[in-house]
Amino acid sequence: MFYHVKELQYRAKPDRPDPVYAKKLQEVLGGQYGEISVMMQYLFQGWNCRAEGKYRDMLLDIGTEEIAHVEMLATMIAQLLDKAPVEEQENAAKDPAIEAVMGGMNPQHAIVNGLGASPNDSAGYPWNARYTISSGNLLADFRANLNAESQGRLQVVRLYEQTDDIGVRDMLSFLIARDSMHQNQWLAAIAELEEKEGKVVPSTFNRQYERTDVSYTFMNCSEGQESEAGRWASGTAMDGQGQFNYDPNPKAQGQNPTLNPAPGYIHGTPKN
Amino acid sequence: MFYHVKELQYRAKPDRPDPVYAKKLQEVLGGQYGEISVMMQYLFQGWNCRAEGKYRDMLLDIGTEEIAHVEMLATMIAQLLDKAPVEEQENAAKDPAIEAVMGGMNPQHAIVNGLGASPNDSAGYPWNARYTISSGNLLADFRANLNAESQGRLQVVRLYEQTDDIGVRDMLSFLIARDSMHQNQWLAAIAELEEKEGKVVPSTFNRQYERTDVSYTFMNCSEGQESEAGRWASGTAMDGQGQFNYDPNPKAQGQNPTLNPAPGYIHGTPKN
Amino acid sequence: MFYHVKELQYRAKPDRPDPVYAKKLQEVLGGQYGEISVMMQYLFQGWNCRAEGKYRDMLLDIGTEEIAHVEMLATMIAQLLDKAPVEEQENAAKDPAIEAVMGGMNPQHAIVNGLGASPNDSAGYPWNARYTISSGNLLADFRANLNAESQGRLQVVRLYEQTDDIGVRDMLSFLIARDSMHQNQWLAAIAELEEKEGKVVPSTFNRQYERTDVSYTFMNCSEGQESEAGRWASGTAMDGQGQFNYDPNPKAQGQNPTLNPAPGYIHGTPKN
Amino acid sequence: MFYHVKELQYRAKPDRPDPVYAKKLQEVLGGQYGEISVMMQYLFQGWNCRAEGKYRDMLLDIGTEEIAHVEMLATMIAQLLDKAPVEEQENAAKDPAIEAVMGGMNPQHAIVNGLGASPNDSAGYPWNARYTISSGNLLADFRANLNAESQGRLQVVRLYEQTDDIGVRDMLSFLIARDSMHQNQWLAAIAELEEKEGKVVPSTFNRQYERTDVSYTFMNCSEGQESEAGRWASGTAMDGQGQFNYDPNPKAQGQNPTLNPAPGYIHGTPKN
Amino acid sequence: MFYHVKELQYRAKPDRPDPVYAKKLQEVLGGQYGEISVMMQYLFQGWNCRAEGKYRDMLLDIGTEEIAHVEMLATMIAQLLDKAPVEEQENAAKDPAIEAVMGGMNPQHAIVNGLGASPNDSAGYPWNARYTISSGNLLADFRANLNAESQGRLQVVRLYEQTDDIGVRDMLSFLIARDSMHQNQWLAAIAELEEKEGKVVPSTFNRQYERTDVSYTFMNCSEGQESEAGRWASGTAMDGQGQFNYDPNPKAQGQNPTLNPAPGYIHGTPKN
Amino acid sequence: MFYHVKELQYRAKPDRPDPVYAKKLQEVLGGQYGEISVMMQYLFQGWNCRAEGKYRDMLLDIGTEEIAHVEMLATMIAQLLDKAPVEEQENAAKDPAIEAVMGGMNPQHAIVNGLGASPNDSAGYPWNARYTISSGNLLADFRANLNAESQGRLQVVRLYEQTDDIGVRDMLSFLIARDSMHQNQWLAAIAELEEKEGKVVPSTFNRQYERTDVSYTFMNCSEGQESEAGRWASGTAMDGQGQFNYDPNPKAQGQNPTLNPAPGYIHGTPKN
Repeated sequence: MFYHVKELQYRAKPDRPDPVYAKKLQEVLGGQYGEISVMMQYLFQGWNCRAEGKYRDMLLDIGTEEIAHVEMLATMIAQLLDKAPVEEQENAAKDPAIEAVMGGMNPQHAIVNGLGASPNDSAGYPWNARYTISSGNLLADFRANLNAESQGRLQVVRLYEQTDDIGVRDMLSFLIARDSMHQNQWLAAIAELEEKEGKVVPSTFNRQYERTDVSYTFMNCSEGQESEAGRWASGTAMDGQGQFNYDPNPKAQGQNPTLNPAPGYIHGTPKN
Repeated sequence: MFYHVKELQYRAKPDRPDPVYAKKLQEVLGGQYGEISVMMQYLFQGWNCRAEGKYRDMLLDIGTEEIAHVEMLATMIAQLLDKAPVEEQENAAKDPAIEAVMGGMNPQHAIVNGLGASPNDSAGYPWNARYTISSGNLLADFRANLNAESQGRLQVVRLYEQTDDIGVRDMLSFLIARDSMHQNQWLAAIAELEEKEGKVVPSTFNRQYERTDVSYTFMNCSEGQESEAGRWASGTAMDGQGQFNYDPNPKAQGQNPTLNPAPGYIHGTPKN
Repeated sequence: MFYHVKELQYRAKPDRPDPVYAKKLQEVLGGQYGEISVMMQYLFQGWNCRAEGKYRDMLLDIGTEEIAHVEMLATMIAQLLDKAPVEEQENAAKDPAIEAVMGGMNPQHAIVNGLGASPNDSAGYPWNARYTISSGNLLADFRANLNAESQGRLQVVRLYEQTDDIGVRDMLSFLIARDSMHQNQWLAAIAELEEKEGKVVPSTFNRQYERTDVSYTFMNCSEGQESEAGRWASGTAMDGQGQFNYDPNPKAQGQNPTLNPAPGYIHGTPKN
Repeated sequence: MFYHVKELQYRAKPDRPDPVYAKKLQEVLGGQYGEISVMMQYLFQGWNCRAEGKYRDMLLDIGTEEIAHVEMLATMIAQLLDKAPVEEQENAAKDPAIEAVMGGMNPQHAIVNGLGASPNDSAGYPWNARYTISSGNLLADFRANLNAESQGRLQVVRLYEQTDDIGVRDMLSFLIARDSMHQNQWLAAIAELEEKEGKVVPSTFNRQYERTDVSYTFMNCSEGQESEAGRWASGTAMDGQGQFNYDPNPKAQGQNPTLNPAPGYIHGTPKN
Repeated sequence: MFYHVKELQYRAKPDRPDPVYAKKLQEVLGGQYGEISVMMQYLFQGWNCRAEGKYRDMLLDIGTEEIAHVEMLATMIAQLLDKAPVEEQENAAKDPAIEAVMGGMNPQHAIVNGLGASPNDSAGYPWNARYTISSGNLLADFRANLNAESQGRLQVVRLYEQTDDIGVRDMLSFLIARDSMHQNQWLAAIAELEEKEGKVVPSTFNRQYERTDVSYTFMNCSEGQESEAGRWASGTAMDGQGQFNYDPNPKAQGQNPTLNPAPGYIHGTPKN
Repeated sequence: MFYHVKELQYRAKPDRPDPVYAKKLQEVLGGQYGEISVMMQYLFQGWNCRAEGKYRDMLLDIGTEEIAHVEMLATMIAQLLDKAPVEEQENAAKDPAIEAVMGGMNPQHAIVNGLGASPNDSAGYPWNARYTISSGNLLADFRANLNAESQGRLQVVRLYEQTDDIGVRDMLSFLIARDSMHQNQWLAAIAELEEKEGKVVPSTFNRQYERTDVSYTFMNCSEGQESEAGRWASGTAMDGQGQFNYDPNPKAQGQNPTLNPAPGYIHGTPKN
């Protein structure tokens, strides 16, 4: 069960309204790697967790924190939209500066949301649950989480560069710090699990059922062999169980497929 | 530019049709972590790559290989659908076994696709581009790729457990091996970049603009302190630049937000 | 079955083209609460109606009217797009006013629709059927309808404020009036049903199977007790069957959940 | 900011696993009117609230409670999936009962989620943000909320009828009771606002700009006049500001639209 | 403006309920090529039509007819769902036949729609507007329409094969006939326009700006030259303005692309 | 299996960056009729092809070519985004020209993609698989393909008109030429199949089960008889098997539907 306190986790107060920036900031609220994504992903991973208690507890700790990040961003966006000049003004059409502002706004911020935040991204595309994963395998999921925090911090940093509003930057500097922690946190949790289970997910699949002759081979399917210069093409593999090798000229090993004709009730194109 | 040869990268031939399994196998073709996702993700990362040549080459190598995986799965699914019993049969309704098969099929395989594969997942939900990311920061993106290969191998392994068809298992054993390689590959590429750049993405943001007082603090936002037992709560942080610490009782530091009333032309609920 | 007459239900003729406004007006055509939504919602409720004849007839009356509203808006948008300056012009790049217009347009209006209306919202997001509901319970559905007409009129009013085109405002004044009627209409239909059935949907569920000890309790899950001041926290409940009460400090009553480990064939993270 | 306690708001423990029912129960977790919808809708309405403090507080109270409902449903679904028979078994294909179970399951519960809940509906369609609204006009939004609780209670009641698992029914009886309260709550809040503002949303639009000649007219656009029998066709309108009247034969009042030809650079079909 | 009569365009009455078939039939109601798609496509093409009057009139004729087809299918589906056995029954779990029926149903038909039709396809995926096109170029759009009627008739024919219900087949035989007419109709309209404009859309683009050296060349980008046997590889091209030719070994003519490094504020991976 | 060469199929190099145009160009990369759509559509049609070998080979030829088109467009877009002025600049807000550029950009190009291309359309909407079809009936599918190439060429031509960048126009002139070929190609393939099978898809359905009394009748469901002037209203039908006729006043032939009440466990509105 959950409880709410009125104060935000951190200050969220812009120096001045900026409806064009409000549109952009939606990306890290309701986008693919926005705060709603990590909130939902961590909570569902926690609720579904069938592993040791410390993982469940940790997932619900961070999932609960992320609700507060969603709250901060929504609050910030609502304030950035204060008094957006969306009203018809006889002379607006003649003033390119006002037109430019309005061209850069998301019109739904005024028409649909009445100058409030929405659970959409910066293109106005709604958040959806396929942005998240809860697989039941924590090593896999922690890699999803590390990715989400990496993409997320990258996006927040880019947004930091796009404003000089001191209040906005103050809040972003907090989110950037939390994303640093969260990258560190997932790196730590991953290290723990990799040490126990090994590096290949899932570790419990019996590898004798795997075609291990190609489990360490880099296949050069595109012209040029620059790819041979990478760590992935030679040396001991990262899982310590094989040697990377490089196939400069991989060949097709399968059949030239021919499909049977469909039965008559399918009304497809006949074979001949 | 691309070229195609007729033979599949590896054998894809089931022992017998199985339309219910065909529906399930769609997950790793057109699902969130299916082969279309990695194909598109790697190709776009390659085409957008502004970094060193070996990365671009490697991304296009693996992206091109993934098209062949999509091809193998599509071919397999079409064969699993051979002669699916979808025709009306006077007695079908009375035979629970046939009804069960048809209840477990995706009806679109017959009605829409004429017993062919489709770019959808196992719930019939269409593949979409928000499953992919190309951010311009390769460390972030390689973490996305490692996650995709981890979730992908996990799903293929689960599907392996759900069939005893020797031909299907043979093909899956190849895909599982390639996913092992690809996890190893991304782990190797990540190691290279982390060594050069450090572990926190993006490494180029000036950390003096970050609220580093909370960059290494785990916040215990949910009751119970099991989460303190993890590697993420104490010791040197994974980036080597700070010490993890644990806040058992994190407090809100921000304002209690109050928003200004909206202008009249918004027709919201007035403040009082 | 349906018939069409050539004349629009009401005038739809702008004084002048305005491609930026055309983009905004798409919201009430193809948005979440646009005319396509109410058209489809009322028609499906009518076609699915298993209740008294007057409801089915009424639903098909209003559903049929809404097709005419879709028609008016599409016609208006096509005219607002007349001669949109989307052609390359050597000097356009140097004229911020033209750039502003084009920045505020939806580029699909030119590229995809050839200066025609589309069934999308003002962010270019396509209309989809999950905007509608037909539940088989008319009291529930009429509440959906009342909401749709309330959000719809609010959006049209906001759009009215954003233009001074007399022709556009004329058409909007008609739509605003119809939305007034339709709010009144659903209020009337709701009153009829509430009188017969009571206020809680569905009325036919045997309330002895409901945990009625919490059927009238407001739970104060967030800090602060301002919420106690509302009508919902004390007095007779609106259904006349209980007394509102206020729990200032609601407690969790359920278990601390622990899940069983998954079977081996799931390849999740083991419990220990 | 938010805090979590380990105990669920109410018991969520099924008597026995039932993977087919788990699929159905997803509807009220991640569907159009599921608990994620109300959670997100109330939280965003609260965060965006520019009105009196008691409304903001109340919205955050109930929004916070809804997170706990999401948690209960996720927990229940994970338990319903315990030991789902998704492993290949040589004889499964011959046992129609097992095939039937598996035909009725969502295969993603095993393949993607490892026997965990997901933020999808009962057809496997992901939750998305267009299920919610936060308009800045509380009377409009409270009508959305009343509808959501009406559809929600209806769906939970239908699900109650589809199981005889005592543990499941126990949890549903709690959710049904809370939905009763929440319908009552929104009815009360609506009554408060309607008394202050009147019944037509938004109340602040100057009605002299509305074509009030059609603000109280029911238009009989479909054959047959059964619709005349309703409360909406005669008597004082619900807003008390007009008289309902019935137009048995509404006429088109607008122009027969003809559009200008598109400019050449559009390459449309020319007028002649 | 539109009017409705109570009678359906054609009989829609099944001999008996069949909830599994109801799910399948949704495909041609709310699927990619279902009746909602053609209804919306033709109406929008008509409303946007800037060409000669007969085209606009024809488009609105057929668009209006398609609303009636949507109505027939919705009515049929509601009847196929009559008395679907979705209630819990103590013994249902033991009866594989009932389980099979319920496994093959769409659970939303009961939970969400109360045994009514919905604007979704046979996988429960909602209809969306990206299924339609209105481009402003009628030759292009009529080809879209011909395709829609071809896919549509194919799907209805497949559904015809999947039932032996005489009432259902009777209605489908009508829809199949109308789809025959509509294929013929679009073929006729296309022939008219092709005669006037030529066969390549759009006809108005000045072909001197086109790289006509590759306007008639088939490129053999995949191994094997079976494709040379087709009409498309030799002879006069269909537009009568060139000769088809076959390039057995097409070469890349473009650059090996290298991208500039991104500016620092993007925080991408640096070039070196 | 597939192979890649480094060189693009054709030059893709703009004269100068243009981030606003980059947004527009996304339409023909990741839009409904963009190159991803035809790439995926042709590849899946090829992989699913159960007909004669020349069709499979041809489909894979063109599908493979389309991957190269996707590559060219992605490369072009990345270059158009070079040095997009998205960094905060103290004076940007005061310079309407810069604001206009940024208002016309897709903010995701900077925030999400780091100045790279994405698999989205010009409104930022992600590509999805429902844009494609593979039906198993090649005549139907080739009509889909002809439509896709017609819409595609139309969109590219419109984009050609919207730029004066010589490098961009050079690349578009190549794509326009290939679209000319591909329209010709599908026209040729369609002619072959129509000659063999006839013009109505599917040709294999026994027409005695079709209500042929309405298979050649144009129904005038909208007022006015301009539609009678078309080729579709009289003369021999295009399939050569009937005579077009025109029904100026089509009548409903079906029942006035009344539905049975729903069973009690559905909790709908009762019949009376």
